[in-house]
Amino acid sequence: MRIDLNCDMGESFGVYTLGHDEAAMPYVTSVNVACGFHASDPVNIVKTIRKAKKYNLAIGAHPSFPDLVGFGRRVMAASPDEIFADAAYQIGALMGICKTEGLTLQHVKPHGALYNMAEKDSNVAAAIAKAIKSVDPNLYMVCSCGSKMVEGAKAVGVKYVEEAFADRAYTKEGTLVPRRQEGAVIHDPKAVAGRVLTIIKTGKVNAIDGTEVALKPQTICVHGDTPGAVDMIKEIRTRLVQEGIELSPFGI
Amino acid sequence: MRIDLNCDMGESFGVYTLGHDEAAMPYVTSVNVACGFHASDPVNIVKTIRKAKKYNLAIGAHPSFPDLVGFGRRVMAASPDEIFADAAYQIGALMGICKTEGLTLQHVKPHGALYNMAEKDSNVAAAIAKAIKSVDPNLYMVCSCGSKMVEGAKAVGVKYVEEAFADRAYTKEGTLVPRRQEGAVIHDPKAVAGRVLTIIKTGKVNAIDGTEVALKPQTICVHGDTPGAVDMIKEIRTRLVQEGIELSPFGI
Amino acid sequence: MRIDLNCDMGESFGVYTLGHDEAAMPYVTSVNVACGFHASDPVNIVKTIRKAKKYNLAIGAHPSFPDLVGFGRRVMAASPDEIFADAAYQIGALMGICKTEGLTLQHVKPHGALYNMAEKDSNVAAAIAKAIKSVDPNLYMVCSCGSKMVEGAKAVGVKYVEEAFADRAYTKEGTLVPRRQEGAVIHDPKAVAGRVLTIIKTGKVNAIDGTEVALKPQTICVHGDTPGAVDMIKEIRTRLVQEGIELSPFGI
Amino acid sequence: MRIDLNCDMGESFGVYTLGHDEAAMPYVTSVNVACGFHASDPVNIVKTIRKAKKYNLAIGAHPSFPDLVGFGRRVMAASPDEIFADAAYQIGALMGICKTEGLTLQHVKPHGALYNMAEKDSNVAAAIAKAIKSVDPNLYMVCSCGSKMVEGAKAVGVKYVEEAFADRAYTKEGTLVPRRQEGAVIHDPKAVAGRVLTIIKTGKVNAIDGTEVALKPQTICVHGDTPGAVDMIKEIRTRLVQEGIELSPFGI
Repeated sequence: MRIDLNCDMGESFGVYTLGHDEAAMPYVTSVNVACGFHASDPVNIVKTIRKAKKYNLAIGAHPSFPDLVGFGRRVMAASPDEIFADAAYQIGALMGICKTEGLTLQHVKPHGALYNMAEKDSNVAAAIAKAIKSVDPNLYMVCSCGSKMVEGAKAVGVKYVEEAFADRAYTKEGTLVPRRQEGAVIHDPKAVAGRVLTIIKTGKVNAIDGTEVALKPQTICVHGDTPGAVDMIKEIRTRLVQEGIELSPFGI
Repeated sequence: MRIDLNCDMGESFGVYTLGHDEAAMPYVTSVNVACGFHASDPVNIVKTIRKAKKYNLAIGAHPSFPDLVGFGRRVMAASPDEIFADAAYQIGALMGICKTEGLTLQHVKPHGALYNMAEKDSNVAAAIAKAIKSVDPNLYMVCSCGSKMVEGAKAVGVKYVEEAFADRAYTKEGTLVPRRQEGAVIHDPKAVAGRVLTIIKTGKVNAIDGTEVALKPQTICVHGDTPGAVDMIKEIRTRLVQEGIELSPFGI
Repeated sequence: MRIDLNCDMGESFGVYTLGHDEAAMPYVTSVNVACGFHASDPVNIVKTIRKAKKYNLAIGAHPSFPDLVGFGRRVMAASPDEIFADAAYQIGALMGICKTEGLTLQHVKPHGALYNMAEKDSNVAAAIAKAIKSVDPNLYMVCSCGSKMVEGAKAVGVKYVEEAFADRAYTKEGTLVPRRQEGAVIHDPKAVAGRVLTIIKTGKVNAIDGTEVALKPQTICVHGDTPGAVDMIKEIRTRLVQEGIELSPFGI
Repeated sequence: MRIDLNCDMGESFGVYTLGHDEAAMPYVTSVNVACGFHASDPVNIVKTIRKAKKYNLAIGAHPSFPDLVGFGRRVMAASPDEIFADAAYQIGALMGICKTEGLTLQHVKPHGALYNMAEKDSNVAAAIAKAIKSVDPNLYMVCSCGSKMVEGAKAVGVKYVEEAFADRAYTKEGTLVPRRQEGAVIHDPKAVAGRVLTIIKTGKVNAIDGTEVALKPQTICVHGDTPGAVDMIKEIRTRLVQEGIELSPFGI
C-alpha cells in the first residue's frame, strides 16, 4: 500500500513571500509549482525547483488563469483555445526551469478557479488534458476524484491520477462540501490523519451526512500555507508511516 | 555556400496585430518567436508556431526583459540571476508550445534591450547562454558578429552562431553604426541584397568609412514588420538563389 | 432636439495601434477613453486626451476588468469591492491625465465584459455607480437603455444617461439582440442613420420582430475601429445635421 | 519647531501582505502610498487610504516604474515622456481613490529606482515635477535634501519639500552613503532618534567622516516594513515629543 502527498508550493512573487515551503517539503512527496500566472515569477520558480530537488520531490506544474492580482481564484470566461494555450505555455515554462536543474516534470495540476471549472466542465478539463498530453505524453494530470476532470482526461487519453483532499468533507455524491458550508473543512490534525488512513486502506470515506462513499485516490492534497498546516502534514505523514503505508510520488 | 535568414515573428499581442508574418515566412529559413515578455501571449504563440510549421521554418525563442508596454526596448538593471531565470522561463514556454506541434527549438536570440546589453556586456550574454545551455544543450545562441555576446557564449560553452544585419551599416571596428547616425540603415533593397551577397561570398563588408572589415555570419537578420521590409527580404532571397547560395536553417 | 454621439477611443497599447481615432473624432461629441486595464497605457492616454482636446470632445473614462490579453472581453468573477476599487482607480487615472491638459471628465462608461455584466446585474452596476459618484458626483454614468445598469445607477443616486447602439438590432423587450443571432448587427450606413434619426425623433425603434419598442437615449454609441465604421459615423452625423438635430455632449 | 515623519505604506499586493502599516501609522504624520506599479492594486489602495484616514494622516502618491516583479527597484531607461505619463496616471489613480473617502492628496514622492534616478538626474526629476504640478498645483513633491530632485522641482516651479533619512549616514557632500558601504545604515533606535533631533534643531548632521554638513529637511523618512522598524519610529516620535518638537504633516 502506497500513496503520494501533493502540496502547492512556490507561490511567492517578487519580494513577496507566501507559504512555508521548506517547512512542508520534508513531509510531502510531490509539489505543484506555481508558474507565474497566479503567483511566482521566473526567479522564484528557480528557487522553488532547487528546494524541491534538495528534498528529492516529484515536481508538477500548477497552471492558472492569468490573474496575478486575484491569485487565480476568479473564474474567467476563457475559451478552450485560450485554456489550452495558457496551459501549454505554463507547463513549458516550468519544464524549462526544471531542465536547468536536470529534472523532469511528473504532473500537471490546474490551480484555483481553473481547477474548479475543470471539476465541473469536462470541456475545460479536456482543454487542459490536451495541453498536457501534447506537451509531453509522460505527464500525469491530477484530477479531483470522480469529477468531470476525470471525464476530460479520459476523453483525451492523457495519463492521470485522482486526488482526495485531506482536510475536506465530502458529500454523499463524492463531491467536496463547499467551503462556506459548516463542517466543510476539518481542522483537527488527528482526525484528518485518521480520515486519510481510512481512505487509503478502505477506498471509502464517511460523507458529511454519515453515509459511506467510495474514494480511491492515488494522491492526497495537503496544504502548506500556514504553520498549522505544516503540523497537520507532519501528523498525516507520521500516522501513515506508523501504519506501514509507503509514501512515494505516484509517477515512480 | 549556404546561409540562414532569420526574422523576428509572432509579435502580435491579444487583439493587437503587428508585423507581416505570413507575407515574410516564405522567404526566410528561421524565425525568432516572441515569448510573451515584450510581445505575444500563449494564443498568439500557438498561432505563430503553426504558421512556422506550415512554412517548414526552424524556430527560435526570442526572450526579452519583462516590459510589454515598452516592447522590451528599454534597458533594465536586471541582475544576471534575473536574466538567467527570465530566459529559461521564456525558452521553456516556447518549447512547451513547440512540443504541442511536435516541433523542437533550434535557437534562442535575445530581443531588443536585452540583445543590446548582451552585445556590450559579456556577463549579460553569459547569463543568457547559461540559461540556453542548461535548458537544452542542443540549442544555438544567436550572437551579434564579433560582439561580447560571442565572448559570453564561448565562456559558457553554449553552441552559437553569429549574425549580421542585412540593412545596417558597420563601423570599421565591425560594430553596428548606431541608428541615430546618418547612413546607419540602408533602405535600397538591391543595395542590401548586394551587401548580403558580398558578406556571404567574401566574409567581409565595407564599413561606413569605406574600410573593409571581416564579417563571417552563419545567419542574416532580416525584418518583416513593414510591407517594404517584406519586399526587401524577397529581393535578398531572389538574389542569393540566383547566385547559387543555399538557404537553409543553420541548425540542420 | 439634440443628441450626443459617443465612441470608444484610445485603445492602442505600447507600440500597438488600434482604431481610427483621429478619423472618427471630427464626427463624434464624446469619447470613452481606455484606462490601461483592457487597453492603453499612460503614454497612449496622454496622446488620446490631447487629440480629444484638439477636437473639443467631452471625455469619459472607459474602465474594464484587468485583462489586457483578453481586451476586457472575458467575464471575470470579480467581487463588488474589486469592481468598485478597479473603477475608482481607473477613473482617477484618467482624471489625473485630463488635469495635465486642464480638462475635466464628463462621464464613465464601463467596457466590454464589465459593461455586459452591469447590463444584467444591478449589483455590478451599483458597484460601478458607487465608484463614479464617490470619485466625483458631477460625473455621469453611461447606461444601456432600460437595462439593470439604470437600476444600479438609480439605486446609488449617480447622475446617468442612457445610450442606444446605432448599428444594433433590439428585441421586443428593448434589449440588444445577441451578436451571434442573424440580423443582430446592421451594416448599411444609410439604414443605420435612418434608425438613429427615428430613435431621436420618436423615442421608439422597430424591434427585430417588427414590433415597436420605446428607446429614449441621451447618447448614441458609434464605433471607430474600422475605416467602414468611420464612414458610418460620417453618414449618421450628416443625416442628423441635415434634419436639424443638434449634436453636443450630454454633459453640457 | 515642527517636522513631518513620512513612511512608505500600502505595499501589499493581491493576497500578499507586506509591511506593518497599522503598527506604524500611529507614529507618523504622512504616508507614501504605492500606486500599483511597483506594489499594491486598487483593492489594497482602498484599504490603505481607509487606514490612513482612520489615523488622520496626510496622504501622498508613491509612483514607480512599471515593474511589479522587481518592486520598482530596477532602473529602467524610460524617457521623460514615459516618466511624465506614468506619474500623472499613478497620481490620478491615488487621487481617485482618495476622493472616494473625501480626502485630498498632500504630496508625491517617487519610489525606488525612479527616486534614485531623480536624485541624480534633474531631467528625470523635472518630468516627475511636471506631472505633479500639472495634475494639481497644490501638491508637494518630496525631494531628497540637496539633490538634483530639488533642481528639477525648482526648474518646473512645483511646490516641494526636502526630506532626510532617519537611519542613513550622509557623506560630507550631503549625499546618502551607498547602502553597500559599511556604516551606511544606522540600526540603533536611540542613535537614530538623536540624529533626527539634531537635524531638526541645528539644520546640520555629522557626516560619516565626522565633518558637519547642512541638512534642513521639512520631513524625515522612516520605515515601517519590519517590526524593528516600527520600534525605531516609536523611539523617534517619543524623543521628538519630549523635546517639544511639533509633529504634523508639512502640507498643513
